[in-house]
Amino acid sequence: MAVLVVGSIALDDIETPYESRKNLLGGSASYASLAASFYSPVNLVGIVGSDFPNSHLEFFKKHRINLNGLQIIAGGKTFRWSGKYHADWNTRETLSVCLNVFENFTPQLPPEYLHPKVTLLANIAPTLQNHVLDQLTHPQFTIADTMDLWINTQRAELEKLLQRIDLLILNDSEARLFTSQANLLVAARQILKFGPAFVIVKKGEHGAMLVSETELFLAPAYPVEQVSDPTGAGDTFAGGVAGWLAANLSLSPPTFNQLRYAILRATALASFCVEDFSLEGLRNLTTETIESRVSALHSFISCP
Amino acid sequence: MAVLVVGSIALDDIETPYESRKNLLGGSASYASLAASFYSPVNLVGIVGSDFPNSHLEFFKKHRINLNGLQIIAGGKTFRWSGKYHADWNTRETLSVCLNVFENFTPQLPPEYLHPKVTLLANIAPTLQNHVLDQLTHPQFTIADTMDLWINTQRAELEKLLQRIDLLILNDSEARLFTSQANLLVAARQILKFGPAFVIVKKGEHGAMLVSETELFLAPAYPVEQVSDPTGAGDTFAGGVAGWLAANLSLSPPTFNQLRYAILRATALASFCVEDFSLEGLRNLTTETIESRVSALHSFISCP
Repeated sequence: MAVLVVGSIALDDIETPYESRKNLLGGSASYASLAASFYSPVNLVGIVGSDFPNSHLEFFKKHRINLNGLQIIAGGKTFRWSGKYHADWNTRETLSVCLNVFENFTPQLPPEYLHPKVTLLANIAPTLQNHVLDQLTHPQFTIADTMDLWINTQRAELEKLLQRIDLLILNDSEARLFTSQANLLVAARQILKFGPAFVIVKKGEHGAMLVSETELFLAPAYPVEQVSDPTGAGDTFAGGVAGWLAANLSLSPPTFNQLRYAILRATALASFCVEDFSLEGLRNLTTETIESRVSALHSFISCP
Repeated sequence: MAVLVVGSIALDDIETPYESRKNLLGGSASYASLAASFYSPVNLVGIVGSDFPNSHLEFFKKHRINLNGLQIIAGGKTFRWSGKYHADWNTRETLSVCLNVFENFTPQLPPEYLHPKVTLLANIAPTLQNHVLDQLTHPQFTIADTMDLWINTQRAELEKLLQRIDLLILNDSEARLFTSQANLLVAARQILKFGPAFVIVKKGEHGAMLVSETELFLAPAYPVEQVSDPTGAGDTFAGGVAGWLAANLSLSPPTFNQLRYAILRATALASFCVEDFSLEGLRNLTTETIESRVSALHSFISCP
């Protein structure tokens, strides 16, 4: 059954210490949908302008990403983001944001999208994430991503969202910001009290931490030797989790162990993402290639 | 067979965001010796002044730490260090250093120390570390720790040391400083080229990375919920590795898997260390208590 993915679709200009590229396919929903598509068909919800290249639409379709929920605004311009990475890759500077058609985005779901097994509310405003949930009938497992901007500006909407989702994915600084708690495990457990049964705290090159009320999984990042562009790694990770669950969930909620499996695949996908610009590192992947990194990850953490 | 531990013995004043304590037992050799002593008898080499409390000497002896190699300088004052931690625990500020008797320390090894199976050259100047190795006859497995100060001021001595040791343990910022390489895996592999067969890069709350020419182990840190004082965690980790190896090595060098085992025990020991000031978190440990954290660590990284 298709995974529902809602988020941003963008055209990015990226500067890294080694290279600059312009007009790249980006946005949280683009990365998440492509990552999910390796495991499950995707129902995409998003918005672009008529300047959005047809080749990107064809690229999505080729990866079994259903575009019936994609609004293409005639005469409108696609969301544009420009960012710059510094030598240590740890700090990202936003150079410019042009919301364009995204400014008045109201997600509208086609009828065939309304009963998803797995929903991924990729990083967009919590008001929009809640608006999507308002339209769904009995969603089975709902995942949301968020960011510091929404924690700072839409705290109430975000707290409302947390009561309605099963898994929140956020990064370490966001977990600390949301809880005012420096210790990540303590922070994650505090977030559980707001509603979700599971929290994944992403720690960039240091991996991710999956927390439930009674269990803990510490996943390393796959050690990439040459990073080209970290943009979208977190969205790819979230998409990988959502896609793997959509393909493997029965009618019951996922077990903690199923989430461990999903996270290792998401970790492998994110490692391919950062090895090239835009979605290029994911473009020609196969599940076999992904599994070979999953096997390597298993060996890096095993202590037989 | 006893593990040989050489390093500093200090009296520390520590300020944390929550509490300040003075006159605490500290120093790299103190932490490392106590940690190692849970697995192996220890032959300690160090120096203190006559102001060094007798209770600390008794404490060492009670933990089967041989003090025949400890120089006690009549009328001299013990090395003193004072440091301050900030709210995120990530930055440590050295408030003052008084080398005192440590300024003219020349390690002299008693005859029964000269044929160690495992040697730990805890964090002291590479000149002194080399001076210790000069005295040894056929040391079987030698581990060294270092710090940014020596990388910056004794690079040549440190490179000479690297040709003589089997395992270098250093933290992430030191690995980057030594190699001018931001990527930790690439940095660790560069360090291997200087001589040691193994490198462990410590990443604080993010765990540790063990690297050989062909293998990789990514160990998480044990997720401590309440840190009291991070001082000595790295020395405790190194001592745990050395002690476990001394107790478990046969005549051949350790296998990669033996090092994995040693690292999980060292990780557990370091987690107990940071839960209290000075060596207090380690004082009443048993190997059973340590193993219970090792079991927890196994469960946090397992993906069955």
